[in-house]
Amino acid sequence: MTSAELLELLEQLRQGRVEPTEVARRLRGESTVDLGFACVDARRGLRQGFPEVIYAEGKTADQVTRIAEAIWKREGRVLVTRLSEEQAARLRRRFRKAAYYPMARCLVLERKPLPKRPGYIAVLCAGTSDLPVAEEAAVTAEAMGNRVERVFDVGVAGLHRLLGKLELIREANVVIVVAGMEGALPSVVAGLVARPVIAVPTSVGYGASFGGVAALLGMLNSCGSGVTVVNIDNGFGAGFAASQINALAAEGRS
Amino acid sequence: MTSAELLELLEQLRQGRVEPTEVARRLRGESTVDLGFACVDARRGLRQGFPEVIYAEGKTADQVTRIAEAIWKREGRVLVTRLSEEQAARLRRRFRKAAYYPMARCLVLERKPLPKRPGYIAVLCAGTSDLPVAEEAAVTAEAMGNRVERVFDVGVAGLHRLLGKLELIREANVVIVVAGMEGALPSVVAGLVARPVIAVPTSVGYGASFGGVAALLGMLNSCGSGVTVVNIDNGFGAGFAASQINALAAEGRS
Amino acid sequence: MTSAELLELLEQLRQGRVEPTEVARRLRGESTVDLGFACVDARRGLRQGFPEVIYAEGKTADQVTRIAEAIWKREGRVLVTRLSEEQAARLRRRFRKAAYYPMARCLVLERKPLPKRPGYIAVLCAGTSDLPVAEEAAVTAEAMGNRVERVFDVGVAGLHRLLGKLELIREANVVIVVAGMEGALPSVVAGLVARPVIAVPTSVGYGASFGGVAALLGMLNSCGSGVTVVNIDNGFGAGFAASQINALAAEGRS
Amino acid sequence: MTSAELLELLEQLRQGRVEPTEVARRLRGESTVDLGFACVDARRGLRQGFPEVIYAEGKTADQVTRIAEAIWKREGRVLVTRLSEEQAARLRRRFRKAAYYPMARCLVLERKPLPKRPGYIAVLCAGTSDLPVAEEAAVTAEAMGNRVERVFDVGVAGLHRLLGKLELIREANVVIVVAGMEGALPSVVAGLVARPVIAVPTSVGYGASFGGVAALLGMLNSCGSGVTVVNIDNGFGAGFAASQINALAAEGRS
Amino acid sequence: MTSAELLELLEQLRQGRVEPTEVARRLRGESTVDLGFACVDARRGLRQGFPEVIYAEGKTADQVTRIAEAIWKREGRVLVTRLSEEQAARLRRRFRKAAYYPMARCLVLERKPLPKRPGYIAVLCAGTSDLPVAEEAAVTAEAMGNRVERVFDVGVAGLHRLLGKLELIREANVVIVVAGMEGALPSVVAGLVARPVIAVPTSVGYGASFGGVAALLGMLNSCGSGVTVVNIDNGFGAGFAASQINALAAEGRS
Amino acid sequence: MTSAELLELLEQLRQGRVEPTEVARRLRGESTVDLGFACVDARRGLRQGFPEVIYAEGKTADQVTRIAEAIWKREGRVLVTRLSEEQAARLRRRFRKAAYYPMARCLVLERKPLPKRPGYIAVLCAGTSDLPVAEEAAVTAEAMGNRVERVFDVGVAGLHRLLGKLELIREANVVIVVAGMEGALPSVVAGLVARPVIAVPTSVGYGASFGGVAALLGMLNSCGSGVTVVNIDNGFGAGFAASQINALAAEGRS
Amino acid sequence: MTSAELLELLEQLRQGRVEPTEVARRLRGESTVDLGFACVDARRGLRQGFPEVIYAEGKTADQVTRIAEAIWKREGRVLVTRLSEEQAARLRRRFRKAAYYPMARCLVLERKPLPKRPGYIAVLCAGTSDLPVAEEAAVTAEAMGNRVERVFDVGVAGLHRLLGKLELIREANVVIVVAGMEGALPSVVAGLVARPVIAVPTSVGYGASFGGVAALLGMLNSCGSGVTVVNIDNGFGAGFAASQINALAAEGRS
Amino acid sequence: MTSAELLELLEQLRQGRVEPTEVARRLRGESTVDLGFACVDARRGLRQGFPEVIYAEGKTADQVTRIAEAIWKREGRVLVTRLSEEQAARLRRRFRKAAYYPMARCLVLERKPLPKRPGYIAVLCAGTSDLPVAEEAAVTAEAMGNRVERVFDVGVAGLHRLLGKLELIREANVVIVVAGMEGALPSVVAGLVARPVIAVPTSVGYGASFGGVAALLGMLNSCGSGVTVVNIDNGFGAGFAASQINALAAEGRS
Repeated sequence: MTSAELLELLEQLRQGRVEPTEVARRLRGESTVDLGFACVDARRGLRQGFPEVIYAEGKTADQVTRIAEAIWKREGRVLVTRLSEEQAARLRRRFRKAAYYPMARCLVLERKPLPKRPGYIAVLCAGTSDLPVAEEAAVTAEAMGNRVERVFDVGVAGLHRLLGKLELIREANVVIVVAGMEGALPSVVAGLVARPVIAVPTSVGYGASFGGVAALLGMLNSCGSGVTVVNIDNGFGAGFAASQINALAAEGRS
Repeated sequence: MTSAELLELLEQLRQGRVEPTEVARRLRGESTVDLGFACVDARRGLRQGFPEVIYAEGKTADQVTRIAEAIWKREGRVLVTRLSEEQAARLRRRFRKAAYYPMARCLVLERKPLPKRPGYIAVLCAGTSDLPVAEEAAVTAEAMGNRVERVFDVGVAGLHRLLGKLELIREANVVIVVAGMEGALPSVVAGLVARPVIAVPTSVGYGASFGGVAALLGMLNSCGSGVTVVNIDNGFGAGFAASQINALAAEGRS
Repeated sequence: MTSAELLELLEQLRQGRVEPTEVARRLRGESTVDLGFACVDARRGLRQGFPEVIYAEGKTADQVTRIAEAIWKREGRVLVTRLSEEQAARLRRRFRKAAYYPMARCLVLERKPLPKRPGYIAVLCAGTSDLPVAEEAAVTAEAMGNRVERVFDVGVAGLHRLLGKLELIREANVVIVVAGMEGALPSVVAGLVARPVIAVPTSVGYGASFGGVAALLGMLNSCGSGVTVVNIDNGFGAGFAASQINALAAEGRS
Repeated sequence: MTSAELLELLEQLRQGRVEPTEVARRLRGESTVDLGFACVDARRGLRQGFPEVIYAEGKTADQVTRIAEAIWKREGRVLVTRLSEEQAARLRRRFRKAAYYPMARCLVLERKPLPKRPGYIAVLCAGTSDLPVAEEAAVTAEAMGNRVERVFDVGVAGLHRLLGKLELIREANVVIVVAGMEGALPSVVAGLVARPVIAVPTSVGYGASFGGVAALLGMLNSCGSGVTVVNIDNGFGAGFAASQINALAAEGRS
Repeated sequence: MTSAELLELLEQLRQGRVEPTEVARRLRGESTVDLGFACVDARRGLRQGFPEVIYAEGKTADQVTRIAEAIWKREGRVLVTRLSEEQAARLRRRFRKAAYYPMARCLVLERKPLPKRPGYIAVLCAGTSDLPVAEEAAVTAEAMGNRVERVFDVGVAGLHRLLGKLELIREANVVIVVAGMEGALPSVVAGLVARPVIAVPTSVGYGASFGGVAALLGMLNSCGSGVTVVNIDNGFGAGFAASQINALAAEGRS
Repeated sequence: MTSAELLELLEQLRQGRVEPTEVARRLRGESTVDLGFACVDARRGLRQGFPEVIYAEGKTADQVTRIAEAIWKREGRVLVTRLSEEQAARLRRRFRKAAYYPMARCLVLERKPLPKRPGYIAVLCAGTSDLPVAEEAAVTAEAMGNRVERVFDVGVAGLHRLLGKLELIREANVVIVVAGMEGALPSVVAGLVARPVIAVPTSVGYGASFGGVAALLGMLNSCGSGVTVVNIDNGFGAGFAASQINALAAEGRS
Repeated sequence: MTSAELLELLEQLRQGRVEPTEVARRLRGESTVDLGFACVDARRGLRQGFPEVIYAEGKTADQVTRIAEAIWKREGRVLVTRLSEEQAARLRRRFRKAAYYPMARCLVLERKPLPKRPGYIAVLCAGTSDLPVAEEAAVTAEAMGNRVERVFDVGVAGLHRLLGKLELIREANVVIVVAGMEGALPSVVAGLVARPVIAVPTSVGYGASFGGVAALLGMLNSCGSGVTVVNIDNGFGAGFAASQINALAAEGRS
Repeated sequence: MTSAELLELLEQLRQGRVEPTEVARRLRGESTVDLGFACVDARRGLRQGFPEVIYAEGKTADQVTRIAEAIWKREGRVLVTRLSEEQAARLRRRFRKAAYYPMARCLVLERKPLPKRPGYIAVLCAGTSDLPVAEEAAVTAEAMGNRVERVFDVGVAGLHRLLGKLELIREANVVIVVAGMEGALPSVVAGLVARPVIAVPTSVGYGASFGGVAALLGMLNSCGSGVTVVNIDNGFGAGFAASQINALAAEGRS
């Protein structure tokens, strides 16, 4: 609620056009659906342009389904991430038309897809083992109304693979770079493009990769200016942030 | 060099309008100034819209000055970060017109300031001790042609301070959130605004803050969607990334 | 044994009313039941108001059952935490009337429930995945004679959910706040209430959450004054400490 | 602001007894004093019973003094912690009557001391080197209106020292236990008393104490039920939490 | 080979009583049995008083059996630690008379037991879950010719359990103290006895116990003088070191 | 492409003997085979003397097979490491003549073996449990055209085992030393030989070995001059580096 | 107090030969001297054979002196460790006859030295930089009545240095091994001697030695059986434990 | 001593041409010079081609000088690393002809320089702040008889700087790559050259670089095959290992 809306609301109250209890209710935020085990945000689509996203890990298949129902009913659009096979099966029995992306472990349910923004997001990954995370980023960005270009397996040990795709990358509005092991790819990319680079470390590697910590530290210490970083394996977060940035670009253009 | 430019260059070569050695030189990247101890990028302003930025820590005052001279000569614009008192004094003897920001530990030198883009970047910090990092972000963003709104000392332990500035924050194109200790502020902000949020952990704290690690981990694990993170105390990186995003918004609008 | 009791006992000895061996025995603490693999405290209920609690992890189902029998026989009240399915089944074959709480993984066995103290403990959690830990805290507190109000899924990314329940929280004597990921909820709560806040980090999260370390560090570095912290996933410890505090309040009132 | 207060305020608005802008101001939280570099909470004494406490580390002597002035003016009571010698000297030039506690590194300024609550808080420490932290806890608790009993240098390597003071400890409402090195003292104390135990790890030690991490981990993993923990060297936090608990006990009694 | 033995050997060589190749062989250490995958020390019993001990983890059942055969043949005494069920079954098919200790996961094979030394080793543990490690220590010490007194489940949260067994502990030549969680027991024991204390941290615990790191750090930082520490869960190492110390005591006595 | 080759190519272009698009193609590096999920380097054998090696972990059996086919077709030689049983079975159905090394978890496929270089690489390991890593190093080195001498189970706790093999080790061109636990073997070996020593820490150990970290740190801090280190369990990397060094020796000799 | 002593005391009480208050005092442990900031153990010499040792770090010079006076008065023997220059100067002004060991940073004050036990303790160190820690161990052991043989700078990178001193080492009753960097020396020594080996990691090293952590981990994971470990730089602890062991050997012999 | 030499020596003994004590002496390694605080290896030049190198950190200026004298006397060549200003001044008063390299913090003293081997070692660094470490590597390699090519400030954020020097790098026998921050340069270099790459992480960076840990992990996890790594800031180790490899190449050629 903006300041103007608040003054407007209070003015209505003074004029007796709304009741004090109604004003209190609106100021108290009863815009949630209380399921007991969950307190679903029922108006996030309105406030932030996309409904609350369900992170399925650590929830029962039944909990996920009931939260999805609450959001579907109010928003007509649901994105679920980190679905296990079992959770996905349960959800798809309930929602026959849901699109399930096994590599990305995401499920998308929508009355109709969002219109695509102009421009695109490039999603790069360093190796074949990084694909699940890269796909989570790509599917998230697509579900949120963005076009995506995938540029996979272009790690720094074979630079010519990356340089061969440079034009496609440079034309993007935002670049997501997914890499495990030493996580060096974002630094190299940031030196070659002038657009925002979002780095996603993955848990790909062994030994002193410490489940993605080596890649994470590499990205946080990137000598490439302007690289920002999300959590290990957090493809969703990168896709979401990239969508916010791309939306900003689109707004300006329209 | 884009593909089109390359084909153009090669076409010129075939027509005998340039010499093979010249083409080799251009392909080999002699766009650097070699100072022996440093290999300065002489055309970054051209390629990325802003010249190479000098990170002064670990360099002698003399090295910093000589690199600054090389960039100044070719680009007419220099930004130096993490200056010690001594380095700053040395630089200012050489460049009398340089603007020095002691709290931010930055120095800006410019023939004429860049024109300001439409829209602004909000820079928030949680506590008074976070000011140096917040100022580094703000000065960087300003030097790169952005307007900045500062919203300081609005940590989550006194929510009303943050909520009282909410409108100003929501109107920004990008929000930089600087916080030490538990680093909770970006999560709360991300839940309240729909714009990209860049989180900067600081080394403010003691004991189990581990020099900013607690804040860094808090931000990487933020439950607020779309939060991206830079290194501990890296105000510069946040300002740079925010500027890239703001530029994207401005481009669209123009 | 207080100093007064000791002098009393020694006085009795001097008067020949007790034997030296009896005094030695009482000073040596034979108030334990030795099972070989366990040395059960047989009088903790007397000393601390609640019998020894059995932590089942790492014990065989048989060991748990035999310890429970020893406590049950002397104290008439048993609380077991961190029960596996198998251990629970074994115990319930032996104690038909035991109440088992699968989400909390706790079992309570009591001749008659403790009378409820005045006032209540609020148990908050940030997300649905934190429920098992929150329930362990709640069940522990209830078993120890406290009333509990549950306020679940009120994480900081959607502040209005928390603010909507603020009155209920502010009226509690003690507030337990359970959160994973960045663990920011206790800081926000501590800024809004004037009562003791006990923070419980959970292992909910992935990547740089490091099994709950991010939340733990966040809580230890909380900018909210008066937040105290227990081990990761230690719902029991929080429930126990909250009960001690609530007992103190109740004592004063009576 | 409670719900009742809010409805009351809105009712006044409807009756035209207050202006909409005034209501907006109160809802927006202009209860802060904006110093530019700090946003001081001007009514915390009202809301939480004690004014905002100033943590001096990382602030300039001038910043500390100006924040102290703002709080002093509105609340008539100031507590500053983690003062350097230099900051303390600067503050005392401004506030001649301030009481400065060099070992605790705290400064207390008050029109008149708070009345003392019934009952007391016991502050224990394991070794002589832990004194600064223990004193920070004690001075904090005293400044907040509590009586304190100090029991120092009673580490577990010489159990008879602790057992000799047991009665004094058992009579306390809350027990603060400060220890470095292996941090074992809280576990032993928690097994001997039935009151809430707040453990404070200190950075006393060397080598594998890792600046207090060993003690911190020891306390978080305490086998003594009901031990809660604060950050390394956070005597203030322990004193504050103990005061909240003691206040609860006092409220009940009155 | 002592210096005296070496001179003796070289003297024999000069006198022509041994061949140069034989001397070379003895100096080169052909006292090993080469199995290709293992290089078994065939004379350790002679050199150190007990044959090479087989650590079974990470070896195949077949490899363990073949190494055991090589040692058995030359030394007539075999100790195997960290046996899986499967490895144990395989070994017992080959060596029908082997004594297997499932809780300790050890197997002992001996033509005849070693005579018991005078005096005994006390093996303490803090909780029931520490039993496997305590038993590994006890079985190792017994196999090496020592008498052992077991004192189990005497953790510091119930001090009277420990104090009740104090005489038995004080009479030992060496005390092994096994504990998980915060690992405080060795500190308390070291303050009560004047004998060498060997501390064994265990991986018992959860959350911030980090698989035994909390206990390990606690023991390394013990305020009790003279505590030495072995690796997490290394009951074998503690039993071995205790046996060396006890042997020293016995030697002196005889 | 060397500078000479580039000038040559450009000269050809000027003379009209090649097309600009062909030159662009060669400069852009279309020497890759794009499989969508993988971007295979098709000429690494030409550039670096050995084709791209397939790291199988984290790839599906199908992905591994398709990448192997692409390399096989162009290079006639394939090395796959870190194969699971299932991946190996799948590959061997496709490539009947592949040699599979189960202990090393490697698969080698070659039209004809590379000729062996003069001199050899010594591969040492400290214990039987280190064999899989040592074998990965040995098989890699052999597949790349080197002779290998294996010296296994020569850990420092029984120095005579190592000293007995010293001549064989000293005659090698390069020495690979594989060790877990405390990782002390490379330090001792480096003090005894004058050749390059490559240290490979393994994850063998438990407790405070932290999955190989103890061995890794030991090797990085080796007091033996000239020891270089690879990742934990990275037998492949050590074999590859040793082969590069051995090749350098062989080149000189020829 | 042993059980026999307790019964004796209680018997005296029954017979009226002592007062109840006296018995209470003795059971309560008034065998301490309370200095306010310290609670000195006044009878440790009686109980454990050596008075309480003063660890000077973190104490003021004045505190150290006052504690020393209390111990000196009752025990006639004082050992102070980790003295700074300033603390040492202050102490020596008070105790003119104190022997100060600057390399070991220890001070010894004794009416007359303890008689030396038969047998000796060998103190080894790996490099010259380890001397301060080795000397702390040696001076401690000597002050406690042991003969010491120093064997310095015998690190594993030059094995012949160690082997040249082997006889001297093998004849010791206990061996203390001090080493920084990778901490490999104890493993090698433990394989060559049959006596207890106490390993002391030092903070000597840089980079990935992490202030002694690499050495500490190396020693905890030692493949040499029977190695026990103390804290980083804890020469005192090693000397104390070695003295306890040597005392055991001596007792047996007498 | 090789086996042949040993047999020869023993044969001489049998023939009475040497005394047993002489043989014992040679087998016992009296090839050391015992300075009490140091045990100098007097024949390392003979055994390994270069005398023992003195690591000055943690030694007094006097100790360094005396060790240097011992080596100088026997070997006529001394290399000292990690010299402080003060140590350097002290050494140069004693050795007037010593060459001191302040940036590398090395001192070289030689009767006559070693002849240079054919071929060269390339030393790269990523940024100007890495120069001290790069120079330590270069000076070490030069002192050991190698030619060195320096290629400085070629970090991955400006790839064209590196590509512009590629030929020079590819022609080297060995490549040392020095980098701080994310440490990505070795991965990129390893993909471009076919020679051994030795990576040196530096402590350049801040925040999550953790004193070089980020760079170290990046290098250990390098996706570039054949990269080996040394300790953080260990320029000496890299120079030494590169010299060993280069020597191998030179031997072959001669």
